[in-house]
Amino acid sequence: MTAATRREHDLLGDRGVPADAYWGIHTLRATENFSITGTPISTHPHLIDALAAVKEAAALANEELGLLAPDKAAAIVAACREIRAGKLREQFVVDVVQGGAGTSTNMNANEVIANRALELLGHAKGQYRHLHPNEDVNLGQSTNDVYPTAVKVATVFAVRGLLKAMAVLQDAFGRKAVEFRDVLKMGRTQLQDAVPMTLGQEFSAYAVMIDEDRSRLAEAVELVHEINLGATAIGTGLNAPAGYAESARRHLAEITGLPLVTAANLVEATQDCGAFVQMSGVLKRVAVKLSKSCNDLRLLSSGPRAGLGEINLPPVQAGSSIMPGKVNPVIPEVVNQVAFEVIGNDVTITMAAEAGQLQLNAFEPIILHSLSESITHLRAACLTLAERCVDGITANTEVLRASVENSIGLVTALNPHIGYTAATDIAKEALATGRGVAELVLERRLLPAEMLADLLRPEVVAGRGQALA
Amino acid sequence: MTAATRREHDLLGDRGVPADAYWGIHTLRATENFSITGTPISTHPHLIDALAAVKEAAALANEELGLLAPDKAAAIVAACREIRAGKLREQFVVDVVQGGAGTSTNMNANEVIANRALELLGHAKGQYRHLHPNEDVNLGQSTNDVYPTAVKVATVFAVRGLLKAMAVLQDAFGRKAVEFRDVLKMGRTQLQDAVPMTLGQEFSAYAVMIDEDRSRLAEAVELVHEINLGATAIGTGLNAPAGYAESARRHLAEITGLPLVTAANLVEATQDCGAFVQMSGVLKRVAVKLSKSCNDLRLLSSGPRAGLGEINLPPVQAGSSIMPGKVNPVIPEVVNQVAFEVIGNDVTITMAAEAGQLQLNAFEPIILHSLSESITHLRAACLTLAERCVDGITANTEVLRASVENSIGLVTALNPHIGYTAATDIAKEALATGRGVAELVLERRLLPAEMLADLLRPEVVAGRGQALA
Amino acid sequence: MTAATRREHDLLGDRGVPADAYWGIHTLRATENFSITGTPISTHPHLIDALAAVKEAAALANEELGLLAPDKAAAIVAACREIRAGKLREQFVVDVVQGGAGTSTNMNANEVIANRALELLGHAKGQYRHLHPNEDVNLGQSTNDVYPTAVKVATVFAVRGLLKAMAVLQDAFGRKAVEFRDVLKMGRTQLQDAVPMTLGQEFSAYAVMIDEDRSRLAEAVELVHEINLGATAIGTGLNAPAGYAESARRHLAEITGLPLVTAANLVEATQDCGAFVQMSGVLKRVAVKLSKSCNDLRLLSSGPRAGLGEINLPPVQAGSSIMPGKVNPVIPEVVNQVAFEVIGNDVTITMAAEAGQLQLNAFEPIILHSLSESITHLRAACLTLAERCVDGITANTEVLRASVENSIGLVTALNPHIGYTAATDIAKEALATGRGVAELVLERRLLPAEMLADLLRPEVVAGRGQALA
Amino acid sequence: MTAATRREHDLLGDRGVPADAYWGIHTLRATENFSITGTPISTHPHLIDALAAVKEAAALANEELGLLAPDKAAAIVAACREIRAGKLREQFVVDVVQGGAGTSTNMNANEVIANRALELLGHAKGQYRHLHPNEDVNLGQSTNDVYPTAVKVATVFAVRGLLKAMAVLQDAFGRKAVEFRDVLKMGRTQLQDAVPMTLGQEFSAYAVMIDEDRSRLAEAVELVHEINLGATAIGTGLNAPAGYAESARRHLAEITGLPLVTAANLVEATQDCGAFVQMSGVLKRVAVKLSKSCNDLRLLSSGPRAGLGEINLPPVQAGSSIMPGKVNPVIPEVVNQVAFEVIGNDVTITMAAEAGQLQLNAFEPIILHSLSESITHLRAACLTLAERCVDGITANTEVLRASVENSIGLVTALNPHIGYTAATDIAKEALATGRGVAELVLERRLLPAEMLADLLRPEVVAGRGQALA
Repeated sequence: MTAATRREHDLLGDRGVPADAYWGIHTLRATENFSITGTPISTHPHLIDALAAVKEAAALANEELGLLAPDKAAAIVAACREIRAGKLREQFVVDVVQGGAGTSTNMNANEVIANRALELLGHAKGQYRHLHPNEDVNLGQSTNDVYPTAVKVATVFAVRGLLKAMAVLQDAFGRKAVEFRDVLKMGRTQLQDAVPMTLGQEFSAYAVMIDEDRSRLAEAVELVHEINLGATAIGTGLNAPAGYAESARRHLAEITGLPLVTAANLVEATQDCGAFVQMSGVLKRVAVKLSKSCNDLRLLSSGPRAGLGEINLPPVQAGSSIMPGKVNPVIPEVVNQVAFEVIGNDVTITMAAEAGQLQLNAFEPIILHSLSESITHLRAACLTLAERCVDGITANTEVLRASVENSIGLVTALNPHIGYTAATDIAKEALATGRGVAELVLERRLLPAEMLADLLRPEVVAGRGQALA
Repeated sequence: MTAATRREHDLLGDRGVPADAYWGIHTLRATENFSITGTPISTHPHLIDALAAVKEAAALANEELGLLAPDKAAAIVAACREIRAGKLREQFVVDVVQGGAGTSTNMNANEVIANRALELLGHAKGQYRHLHPNEDVNLGQSTNDVYPTAVKVATVFAVRGLLKAMAVLQDAFGRKAVEFRDVLKMGRTQLQDAVPMTLGQEFSAYAVMIDEDRSRLAEAVELVHEINLGATAIGTGLNAPAGYAESARRHLAEITGLPLVTAANLVEATQDCGAFVQMSGVLKRVAVKLSKSCNDLRLLSSGPRAGLGEINLPPVQAGSSIMPGKVNPVIPEVVNQVAFEVIGNDVTITMAAEAGQLQLNAFEPIILHSLSESITHLRAACLTLAERCVDGITANTEVLRASVENSIGLVTALNPHIGYTAATDIAKEALATGRGVAELVLERRLLPAEMLADLLRPEVVAGRGQALA
Repeated sequence: MTAATRREHDLLGDRGVPADAYWGIHTLRATENFSITGTPISTHPHLIDALAAVKEAAALANEELGLLAPDKAAAIVAACREIRAGKLREQFVVDVVQGGAGTSTNMNANEVIANRALELLGHAKGQYRHLHPNEDVNLGQSTNDVYPTAVKVATVFAVRGLLKAMAVLQDAFGRKAVEFRDVLKMGRTQLQDAVPMTLGQEFSAYAVMIDEDRSRLAEAVELVHEINLGATAIGTGLNAPAGYAESARRHLAEITGLPLVTAANLVEATQDCGAFVQMSGVLKRVAVKLSKSCNDLRLLSSGPRAGLGEINLPPVQAGSSIMPGKVNPVIPEVVNQVAFEVIGNDVTITMAAEAGQLQLNAFEPIILHSLSESITHLRAACLTLAERCVDGITANTEVLRASVENSIGLVTALNPHIGYTAATDIAKEALATGRGVAELVLERRLLPAEMLADLLRPEVVAGRGQALA
Repeated sequence: MTAATRREHDLLGDRGVPADAYWGIHTLRATENFSITGTPISTHPHLIDALAAVKEAAALANEELGLLAPDKAAAIVAACREIRAGKLREQFVVDVVQGGAGTSTNMNANEVIANRALELLGHAKGQYRHLHPNEDVNLGQSTNDVYPTAVKVATVFAVRGLLKAMAVLQDAFGRKAVEFRDVLKMGRTQLQDAVPMTLGQEFSAYAVMIDEDRSRLAEAVELVHEINLGATAIGTGLNAPAGYAESARRHLAEITGLPLVTAANLVEATQDCGAFVQMSGVLKRVAVKLSKSCNDLRLLSSGPRAGLGEINLPPVQAGSSIMPGKVNPVIPEVVNQVAFEVIGNDVTITMAAEAGQLQLNAFEPIILHSLSESITHLRAACLTLAERCVDGITANTEVLRASVENSIGLVTALNPHIGYTAATDIAKEALATGRGVAELVLERRLLPAEMLADLLRPEVVAGRGQALA
C-alpha cells in the first residue's frame, strides 16, 4: 500500500503508520510480531469495553489528583466513552494470542484512545506532544495492573450473560419436570434397570444441577471483583501517587456498576491468577454437568425403534445425507462438544497460570482468550439447548409405563417384607424365565395378593422421592 | 491354601470363604474381579472411618425407627466403633480401582461389620441368619447413598488435614516475609529486571497466596457437607421409611462432629458429582500456586555461582551421584511433581464425573481414589516444603542489594518527572554503554542532583507497596 | 529403635544407619525428605530390575576398560544379579515421588549394591573404603544417564506385558466376531437407528481397534530403545572415558536382550523426555479406544428389560446391596476408570516434561511413576476385560433380528432406486404411523414387490461390509 | 432483509433461502441451529479444499461406474475445481462447532456444489430436479465417510505446512549451534551449576529436538492417509456399489497427490478416531518441546543486569507501557502460549474421541476444529520463533566464560583422580569460602599443578560431548 503514512517513534526506532489508523507504532510492531491466530482482540468485545472503562477511570483519577490537565482528561474520557459505545472496534487489531502479559493490548488501547482524544482536541493523529499514549493515557498505570483489571471486568460481564442463559435452561428443564411429573418410568443405575421413578423427577434433577451450578458460578465471579489497579509494574505502586488506587477503583466501580475492591496485597495480586483458575474450574464443572445431561438426553431419545425411545427431541434438521428420514440429536451433540472445549481450555488456563514467574504472569493473554471462549460458548450452548431442544421435548408415556410394569426392579420394594435373600431368588427366576415378579411372589406364597398389589403399585414405588416434581 | 473355609451364598451360587476372614462372598468375588492396582481400600483410612461412621449412624436410625432389634443395632454399632478405632483395617481388601459405583466397597464394609457383630453376639462368622450384611447392616441403605456419603465425610476429614498443613506453610512463608522485610532486591516481570521491591514483599506474596487458597478450600469443603443418605437406590428413598433420612443424618453428624445437611433433591444428589469436581478444581488451584512458588524458589536459589543466587535453600541431601558438592532444590522439586499429579488427577476426576449416566455415576471409585491422593499428597507436600525448605531459607543480602543499585529499572521512578520518552532514551543508553541511570540523567541535566538522589533511593522506589512486610 | 547402627558420612555430615540395612546415608536422608506417598520404589519392580541391569552393565564396561578391579566388578555384578533374581527388593525404600531427577533412586541402588557386594567380598556393610557406592558402583555414571536409561529399559519390559495382554483381549473380541458373524442387528449412528449390520462386524471392529493400537504401541516402544548411558551429568560424557558408552550399551543390550542404541546427541538425549511423552500419548490412545469399547458393551447390554438388551455380559458378582438380582457391568466399568486414570496421567506426564529446564528434566520420577501405573493398570484392565467379560458375552439373537425387521433405516437401501427425496417421504410416514417401510413402498407403487423384497433382505443390506466377520 | 428468496424443501418442511445463496435449506437450518462460535467453517481452508476434492473424486467414480450422467459429473467436477481454486469460500457458512458428526458441513458442501453446478449447466440455483445435492453430489456417499476423509486430507496438508515451518526453526537453531560452537558456558541441572559445555551444544540440542519431532510428526501423518471413503453410513458400504470405494480412492489420490489407502475394515474405520488422537498426541509432544526450549531462551536471556544474561534475544517491540527501555521476550512467550493451547486442545480431542458411540463418533467437528487450530498455530509459532527471535540471538561470550572459570562444578572432572569423597570436600570448602577449586586442590597437594591445569581446562571438560557443534 502506498497510502499516506505518519512517522512514529519508539525504543526501536521510527516506523510509518497508516495515516488513518488510530493505533500507532507499538500496535504496528505487535501485529507484525504476533501473527498466530489471525483473530484480533476486537473479537472479545467485553475486553474492549473493560479496557476503555479502566482507561476512563484512570483518567478521572489522575485529573482528580491534579496529575492530568482537565482538557486532556476530558478528551480521554470522551474517547473511552465512544469506544464503550461500540465505536472504533476495528482499531483493536492485535492478535488474541500474543506475548508480553497483555502489553500489546494495553498499548493498542493507549494509542487508539490517544489518537481519538487528539482528534477531539483538534489535533492530528500522532501529535503525541499534545497528548501521549504512555504519558497521558497510561498515566499512573502499567499493563500489569490495567490488563488483569480489564480481564476481570470483562469476565464479570461475560459471566453475567452466562448466568442468564443458564437460568433460561434451568427454566426449560423445570417446565418439563412439571409437565412430566406423573409420567412413570424405570430409573437406571449403571445402565441397568433399577427402580421406578417419574420422568418429572429425572428432568427436575437437570434443573437442580443447573441451579446449583449457577450458585457456584455466582460465588466464583465474586472473586473476580478483586482488582489490582494501582499496583503498577509489580504491585509496589511505583508512580501511582497516594490516593490514586482508591480513586481509580471508585471511578471504575461507578462506570461499570460493579462492586470492585482493591486487593489487600498488591504484590500478590499482580502475580496471581488464582481467580481465573478457579473460575475456569467452575466453568468446567458447568461443562461436566451439561455434558452429562446431554448424554442422557441422547440416550433417552435413542431409537426411534431400536433404542430406549423414552423421549423425543424436537427435530431441527435432517440428520443424514444418506439415510432418509433420520433425525439426530444434533443440539445435545453440539453442547457436548462445547463442554469438551471448555474442559480442554481449563487445562490450557491451568498450564498458563502455573507458568507465571516471580512478580508477573506473562501468559494472561491465553488465559483471557480461553476463558472468554469458554464463557461465551457455554452461554450459546445453554440458550441453544433450551430453545432448540428442551422446550420441544415430548415423552413416550406408554413406552415408559410399560417398562415399569414389566420390570424386575420392582422386587426391591419387597425387601422390607420378604428380605434381600428371598427377593434375590425371585429376581433371579424372573430374569431366567421372563415371568413377572408379582406372579412369582404369589406362587411362592410369600405375601398375600392384596398387600403385594399395593406394594408394587408403581406410583407407590416411585413416590417416596423428594424431588421437585 | 487348604485352610479352613466357610460356605457362603449369593446370586451367583456358593463359594468357600477363608474361615477367619471377616469379609464374605461378595468381597471374595470383588477381589477376584478387580485385580487392577494391588492397592486395597484400606490405604484410604479416612474412607474406612467414614464408612464405619455411616453404618453406625444407619443402625442407630434403624433402631430408633423400630426397624432393627436393639441387640443387633448394638452389635453393629460396637463393630463400627472398633473399626473407627483402627481395628480390622486389614479386612478392607477390595482394590481401590473397582467397577460398580462403590458397591464392592460397601459390601466389604457390610460383611466385615456383620461378621464382627456376629462374633460380639456370640455367633460364628457367616451365621447370617442371626445378623445379615445386607438385610441388617445395609438396612434402609444402598451403595448409592452410603458410598457418596462416606466419600464426602472422608473428604472433609482429609481436607481438614490439608488446611492445617497449608497453615503451617503459610506461617513459614510469613515468618520469612518478616525476616526479609528490609532486604532490597530487583523485582522481575517476564524474567526481565523491573523495579525494586523487598524480599519480604516477595515472600509475603507466597503467604498471601496460600491464605487465599485456604479460604477457597474451606469454601469448597462446605459443599461437601451435603449428603444424600436416605436416597437409597436412585434418590426416591425406596425402602427408607419416613424419618430415616433425617435420623441417619443426625446420628452421622453427631458421630463425626460435622454439620452435615441432607440434599434438598435426592434424585439429583445421587447422580451428581459436582462437589467433587469443584473440590478437585480448587485442589488444582492450590497445586498451581504451590508449583509457581516452588518454581520461584528454585529460580531465586539458582547457582551457586552461575545463577541468580538471591536466596539459599537449606541443603537436605547430596544432590548428585557424580558432581561432588552439588546440592539441588529437591524439596521444591518434589512439590512441583505433586502439583503435576494433582492437575492430572483433576482431568481423571473430570472425565469420571462427565461419564455418569442417568440416575448414577458408576465411576465414583476412581473419583474417590484420585481425590484422596490429591489431598493427602498435597498435605505431605505442604508440610515437607515448610519444614524441610522454607524454614531454612536464607538471603544473600549483598547480592540482592547490588542488583538494585546497578539496575536500569530505577529509571521508571523518573517517569513522572522527565517523561516516558526521555526515560526510554536514558534506559537505552544505559543498556548500550553499561553506564548508570543517575550518571546519565545528570549528564543530560534532566534533574538536579539532590532531587535525583532522593528519587532513586531504592528504599523509596520499593517503599510504596502495600504488602505485608 | 535402639537397634545397632553404623555411622555413615556425606556432604552434610554423619548419620547412623541401621546396621542391617543395605541402603546407606543417602537413602536415609531421601526417605526423611520424601514422605509423600508412602509407596516405595520397590513397587515398580521393572525399574529395580532395570537399575540392577544398568549397574551390572556399567561394572562390566568399567572392568573392560581397566577402570574397575576385577574382584570389585565381579562383586557388583553378583549383587546386581541377586537383585534381578528378586532379592533385596525391600531395600529399595525411597518414595516413588521424590525430588531430584531420580538421584535418590540411583543412590539407593548404589548403596544396596555396594553393601551387598561388600558382603560378597567378605566385608561388613558400610566399609566403603573397600568398595564405594559412588566411586565404584556409580563409576563413570551420573543419575542423569543411569536413571533415564533404567526408566527406558523398565518401560520396554512393562509395555511388552501390556502388548501381550492386548493380544489376549484382541483374540477374545476376535472369537466373538466369528461367533456372531451371522447375527443381524441394526447399526446405530449418533445413537439413532441407522442401517443393518452383523454383531460380528461390531465385535470385529473392537478387535481391529486393538490390533491397530498394538501396532502403534509397538512403534512407540521402539523409540524407548534409545538410551543416553555414557552421557553422565549433562551429555558431554564428562568422566566417562572413550569406549565406555559403547561398552556399557553393549553389555546392557546383552543383559536385557534389548536392541538398545545410544542417542546420537547425548546433550539432547539427557534433557529430552519426548519418548515418554509420546509413549504416554499412545497409552492415552489405547485408553480412549478401550473406554469407547467398554461404553458400547455397557450400552448394548443395558436392561435387562428397559434397555437395549442386545447382548449379555457374564455376571461376575451381585450388583447391588439393595436391589436383589441386579447385575451390573462392573468389568467394563473398571476398565473405563483405568482409562480415565491413564488420560489424567498423560496430563501429569505432559506437565512434568514441559517443566524440564536447560540440561535436565528434574521431574522424571513422576514421569516414571505415572507411566508405570498407566502401563500396568492398562495391562490388568485388558486381561480382566478379556477373561471376566468378553469371553462370556452372549447375544440375544431374537431381539437383534427383530430390530432390523422393524426398522425404518432399511429405506436407505432404496435410495439408488427411488431417490433420497422419495425415500425421505416413506421414512417420515413410517415414523409417524408406525407402519413398515415395505408396506408403504408397495402402497405407493414405487417398486415391484419382488424387487423390493430382495432389496430389503437384511442380509443383503448388511452384507456389503468389508469387516473381518 | 427483504431480498429475493427461493423456496426449498426438506424433511421438516419448506423454507425460503436467499436467492443468491449457493447454500440451501440444510445449511440454512444448520446456521440457525449452531450459533456457537460465530466462526464459519470457511476459516479452515484446508477442510474446504479437501471437501471439494472428495466430492470431485466421488463424482468421477460415479461417472466411471455409470451411476452419474457425464454432464452432471462434469458440472460437479467443475464446481469443485472452482472451490479448490479459492472461489465461493464465503458460501461455507456453517459454524465450526456443530452437532451431527459433520453432516451440516457435508450438506453445506453438497448444496454449494450442486447450485454452482446447476449454474454451469444453465439452470437456476435451487432447480434440484436437474442436479440434486443429495442424490447427485452426495451419490454413493455418507457424511460418515466423506467428512472423516476430508478431515484427513485437510490434516495432511496442514501438517505439511507445519513440518516445513519446523524445518525453518530447526535450521535457525542449527545455525546458532554452529555460530556458538566455541562459546564455553556452565551447563546446569536442576537450575544448579553443573559442568561446562558450549553454547553451541545447548543450541544444537534444540535443533535435534525439532528434528526428532519432525520425524515423529511425519510418522503420525502417515496414519492419516488411511481413509474410509466408500464406507457410507456405518462402514458396510451400503449404496456404494462394487468398485466405487477403490475408484473414489484412486481419483482422490490423483487429485490430492497423496498416497491414500482405504482402510481394511471400514466398520472400524468409520467409528475410529485413533489417528486423530495420535496426531494430537504428537502435536502435544511438539508443543512440550517448543515450550521447554522457549522457557530456556527466556531464562538464558534474563536480565539485563539481574538475570543470567547469557544470551540476548533481538528486541522486537517495547516491553512495557510503564518501564522505559524494558524489552521482554515476547516471542518465546507467545510460543509458550500456543503450546498451552495445543496441550488443552489435546484434552478436548481426547474427550471427543472417547465419547464416540457404537458405529460413529458424532463429535468429529470439535476434533477437526481443535486439531486444525493446533496445527496452524504451531506452524505460525515455529516461523515466528525462527524469524523474529532465534535468527537474531547473540551471546554474551565474556559472561559465559567467566561463569565457567569461576565454577565449582569443574571439580567433577577430578573425580577419577582424587575420588568423589575428596572432591566433595573441595567443593564444600570452595562454596563456603568463595575460593577456587584449583587453589584448594593445590593447597591440599592432591594433584600436581601441571596435571591439574590440564584437567581443569574448560575446553577439555566440555569437550567430551558428542553434540553437533
